[in-house]
Amino acid sequence: MQWCRFTANGSTSYGIIEGESVHEVSGTPFGEHSKTGKSHGLDSIQLEVPVIPPTFYAAGINYPEHVTWAAQMRGQEPDLPKRADVGYRAINALVPHGHDIIVPADATEQLQYEGELVVVIGKTCRNVTETESLDYVLGYTIGNDVSERTWQRNDRTMWRAKNTDTFKPMGPWIVTDLNPDDLHVVIRVNDRVVGEYDVATALFGVRHYISEMSKYLTLVPGDVLWMGTEGATENMKDGDLCDIEISEIGTLSNRVNWQK
Amino acid sequence: MQWCRFTANGSTSYGIIEGESVHEVSGTPFGEHSKTGKSHGLDSIQLEVPVIPPTFYAAGINYPEHVTWAAQMRGQEPDLPKRADVGYRAINALVPHGHDIIVPADATEQLQYEGELVVVIGKTCRNVTETESLDYVLGYTIGNDVSERTWQRNDRTMWRAKNTDTFKPMGPWIVTDLNPDDLHVVIRVNDRVVGEYDVATALFGVRHYISEMSKYLTLVPGDVLWMGTEGATENMKDGDLCDIEISEIGTLSNRVNWQK
Repeated sequence: MQWCRFTANGSTSYGIIEGESVHEVSGTPFGEHSKTGKSHGLDSIQLEVPVIPPTFYAAGINYPEHVTWAAQMRGQEPDLPKRADVGYRAINALVPHGHDIIVPADATEQLQYEGELVVVIGKTCRNVTETESLDYVLGYTIGNDVSERTWQRNDRTMWRAKNTDTFKPMGPWIVTDLNPDDLHVVIRVNDRVVGEYDVATALFGVRHYISEMSKYLTLVPGDVLWMGTEGATENMKDGDLCDIEISEIGTLSNRVNWQK
Repeated sequence: MQWCRFTANGSTSYGIIEGESVHEVSGTPFGEHSKTGKSHGLDSIQLEVPVIPPTFYAAGINYPEHVTWAAQMRGQEPDLPKRADVGYRAINALVPHGHDIIVPADATEQLQYEGELVVVIGKTCRNVTETESLDYVLGYTIGNDVSERTWQRNDRTMWRAKNTDTFKPMGPWIVTDLNPDDLHVVIRVNDRVVGEYDVATALFGVRHYISEMSKYLTLVPGDVLWMGTEGATENMKDGDLCDIEISEIGTLSNRVNWQK
């Protein structure tokens, strides 16, 4: 099943996508809902961020080659994380599929993509086992954890490096009933493949993250968990189009729009 | 003006406190609202967290003696932050005035309070000057940035050290039309004063934080900014009552409830 959030005729609602049609839904995928009977062509609506999360979790460094590359950039030995310690991103930065990544004029040239699987929590959970964990997942979408590496290295926190407005494209929609171990990510800039990996090569997988987090935290419907990216990443320039494609989900596309 | 969020007769709404009465409001303090005509005695209602923020910002280290003390604890030289780089906390951890701080059985004895001023954003803002900044503030409340120092030192992020469920008491209400420079914080454990400071001794004040953040981020109604704490902090034990009192606002009280 394929859930989206969309705007048509000035109002925003959830919808279920079937083929090229979006069936408008009253309610949300997290609770009671029903089709209103209205439907729209997929190319006649404006896709929105598929969920506004109560808490926006991010695994951060969770793939071995990315950790090694990032350490080399800093001139340090790679230090693989020993535990699934989760981090955070911020709501202000979210934009949907198709929205520009608007880069402040004072950003350095080190503006980079990170293509990631996003897990959307569907039900409240606390203290769940790895085996149970996927029962609490609504589905999966795609995230681009856009990062300004100079700010990331030099600031005390990642506030503007990763959470500047528009630096967190997420979408285009949520797909349910997937096995995260089967998914493959391809990242393209202007149609050139710049990165590619299997989700299953993560240091800590979806089941482990959810189970560990839930020992201390209550996860609630709509919370999202971005799983991290693999490999080296490259700079993007003004006008570049960045696509993150994940098999069985789709493609998240956003263009870089550098402010003068 | 004194805003609260409260539950009475099974339903939650915003209210305006006048003396010992809570006047129920339809709508929110951030938009259109009106008194419904219903009112309740302040001691007959259940106070809730006064706002559920879209994004939960925290200054983190923002007072000189706290930075010096924290560095000594780690056996390092103090390194005062050079800029107002903001951090994040998480929604799951919020609890209201009067709610227990529930400590997981595997926490170490280094469970500590941090008494802080909380700024509640009232209007959407981007690129505002320090002079304009307070026009975008609805008011102020109180936060206890409860921290498990062993996890804070050893984990890669502050996920469970600061964001375990119930580790972020906030309340009891929001007071408008204050000058943050006038406010004084007193922290008590079991009625013994364990810390005291003037809000205005912060390295970076409320106006500077809002102005700097707004260069990169859109702040929206309901966002909160916790301003950090001053001084050394001490361990709390099972059963301890921690009060954070801020002049012109009130007192946030929460008891430690250590799981067996």
